Amino acid sequence: MTGKRIYLDWNATAPLRPEAKAAMAEAWDLAGNPSSVHSEGRAARRMVEDARAVLAAATGAKPHNVIFTSGGTEANALALAPGLHPSGGEPLMRLMVSAVEHPSVLAGGRFAGTGIVRVPVDQSGVVDIARLEAMLVREPPALVSVMLANNETGAIQPISRVAPIVHAAGGLLHVDAVQAFGRMAIDLSELGADLLTVSAHKIGGPKGVGALVMAEGVAGLEPLIAGGGQEKRRRAGTENVPGIAGFGAAVKAALATREAAQSRMEALRSHLESGLRAADRDVVIFSEGAPRLANTTLFSRPGMKAETAVIAFDLEGIAVSSGSACSSGKVQASHVLAAMGAEPALAQGALRLSLGWDTTEGDIEGALKAWRKLAGVLGKERQTVA
Amino acid sequence: MTGKRIYLDWNATAPLRPEAKAAMAEAWDLAGNPSSVHSEGRAARRMVEDARAVLAAATGAKPHNVIFTSGGTEANALALAPGLHPSGGEPLMRLMVSAVEHPSVLAGGRFAGTGIVRVPVDQSGVVDIARLEAMLVREPPALVSVMLANNETGAIQPISRVAPIVHAAGGLLHVDAVQAFGRMAIDLSELGADLLTVSAHKIGGPKGVGALVMAEGVAGLEPLIAGGGQEKRRRAGTENVPGIAGFGAAVKAALATREAAQSRMEALRSHLESGLRAADRDVVIFSEGAPRLANTTLFSRPGMKAETAVIAFDLEGIAVSSGSACSSGKVQASHVLAAMGAEPALAQGALRLSLGWDTTEGDIEGALKAWRKLAGVLGKERQTVA
Repeated sequence: MTGKRIYLDWNATAPLRPEAKAAMAEAWDLAGNPSSVHSEGRAARRMVEDARAVLAAATGAKPHNVIFTSGGTEANALALAPGLHPSGGEPLMRLMVSAVEHPSVLAGGRFAGTGIVRVPVDQSGVVDIARLEAMLVREPPALVSVMLANNETGAIQPISRVAPIVHAAGGLLHVDAVQAFGRMAIDLSELGADLLTVSAHKIGGPKGVGALVMAEGVAGLEPLIAGGGQEKRRRAGTENVPGIAGFGAAVKAALATREAAQSRMEALRSHLESGLRAADRDVVIFSEGAPRLANTTLFSRPGMKAETAVIAFDLEGIAVSSGSACSSGKVQASHVLAAMGAEPALAQGALRLSLGWDTTEGDIEGALKAWRKLAGVLGKERQTVA
Repeated sequence: MTGKRIYLDWNATAPLRPEAKAAMAEAWDLAGNPSSVHSEGRAARRMVEDARAVLAAATGAKPHNVIFTSGGTEANALALAPGLHPSGGEPLMRLMVSAVEHPSVLAGGRFAGTGIVRVPVDQSGVVDIARLEAMLVREPPALVSVMLANNETGAIQPISRVAPIVHAAGGLLHVDAVQAFGRMAIDLSELGADLLTVSAHKIGGPKGVGALVMAEGVAGLEPLIAGGGQEKRRRAGTENVPGIAGFGAAVKAALATREAAQSRMEALRSHLESGLRAADRDVVIFSEGAPRLANTTLFSRPGMKAETAVIAFDLEGIAVSSGSACSSGKVQASHVLAAMGAEPALAQGALRLSLGWDTTEGDIEGALKAWRKLAGVLGKERQTVA
């Protein structure tokens, strides 16, 4: 690696914010276990509870309804628990998930595979609300999981329209907000979400921390990791005190600058997408017809192979991704694009460029320069074949 | 808090080692997600794999059999999975645990409560091997979980005698080595363990990281957290890269100085225990008749209330614990002492002083000074009552 690297893979992981580093370094010097009653233990406990208050304020929840976990994936696994129910309602033994959810939601948590139903999306990747409603009324009440914004395309789901339908059918709504958190304003009651998953490392907090946030009136959550009184007996194990402190600090920093950062990114992305198209008229941008996160572009062009393109960009000093990082490494078409009905030949080329608060116009220019080079090669290859 | 604090609660959490801090700070600057294929991703991946190699070497395992988790509690929850089996053997659907296990083992992981049997211990807290054997031969093969050293008493279990009995009965042996790791030499095959739990924050690594280590020939482990390819599909979720790096660095540092640290602690503890008794002839030291970790003293005397004593020590500037930190905060007799048949009146006073590599003779003197003060009060109260 020589020269300045350009990092355009913020949806996989954002760089750690200085505020998070400072909070973590402070936590390092607290030896105490938060469950210990001595001064050292109480100091560690305070640090955890301060972060909990930040998370609660950032999501419109009550602090006692914030459960810290080891990340978004664990929070999803914890949330998808058979037996959850609205206070006074019946235990939910069915799970419905949108077809474009993160793999950790598609895995269904503790629901048996036979109890999991997928709800289709349209060609923009937006959940089909009419189908969801039809599926909900046919059968007993369900736990429904629909993400707020998709990690691959950035497409934003109409959660506030989904919620009343789920509730009218006696169900509960889980919202995986890992990609949206810090990028959109989030409020549990405005969304109508009953359970919400957030993660630290997408917003400049450390890897290995997340939270499941619940609305009042959600009952019956069984711990996934049991055998300790932590997190009000909903998640056992000594708390990741530095990670939690870093999470809290990152949330504060992200929310303080969210709106400015988003408008800036929106302008940069617009520049990026025009440039991608200007260099190659065959470029297709996925979910362009839907509301999208301001920072995400997933695109392809005929004849492109995503894995090769990722490496080509990397050699030019630019970090980008093919679909979600969690499924990178294996050559397999994105389940998100398959659910959207994208042509397999186009889907196999899908490349994700995701921007962050530090992304500059120069970064975008650098990416476009690399793209023009790659598109030139791809265009020639295509002419040869044609 | 004024004056120098004396920390004697290392079994709850050890202070973070400088080597771990340095490794974590280095990891902070790697933005990449280890699942991403670009340079930043590969750099993060290397850091995880380097730590995995350290953990493997430290436990006598193969690197591909080390599964990083969010801590010892999650590793225990992952390990206690119905369906595990020796290669070629039958799936184990029964769980047997010693009565003095950590609450996360007693909770039984994914085994249904009805499938969990407790194996008694003697008055020193050592598992009753004859009873275990009798219980094993009566029924179908079982997964057996016996800890290496107890977190409250420090008592060391005869794992290498337990293992052949479990294996002869077609079972597998899980060993919770959270307290023993870094304090005793550990080798999977010497122990005869099939699955082994370790944790970072007891040895000077960060809170929020642990690992489940497996021997070759263990099959059928289902992930507890699914929906991602990480850890060879045995534990989904973006890796806690800084935490894992800090864990690896702490293991290296702990093992490099283990033997010297242990003999030093053994001498200090011997001084501590003589001093406790010299000040009060009614002192009872638990598990004194068993081999114990060199750093742990759990003791009581009639008329003492542990919660009050912890606060009395804290006010004197000394951090100690009543039983395990995980159960502190609630006033409840230790399940460990109950299993050992300790008198409830004595058990309710049980105080744990646990030493670490930084503990000095001055720390022990400070603790003894506080104890002489407390014991004087307790002695007088007793005389008044008598």
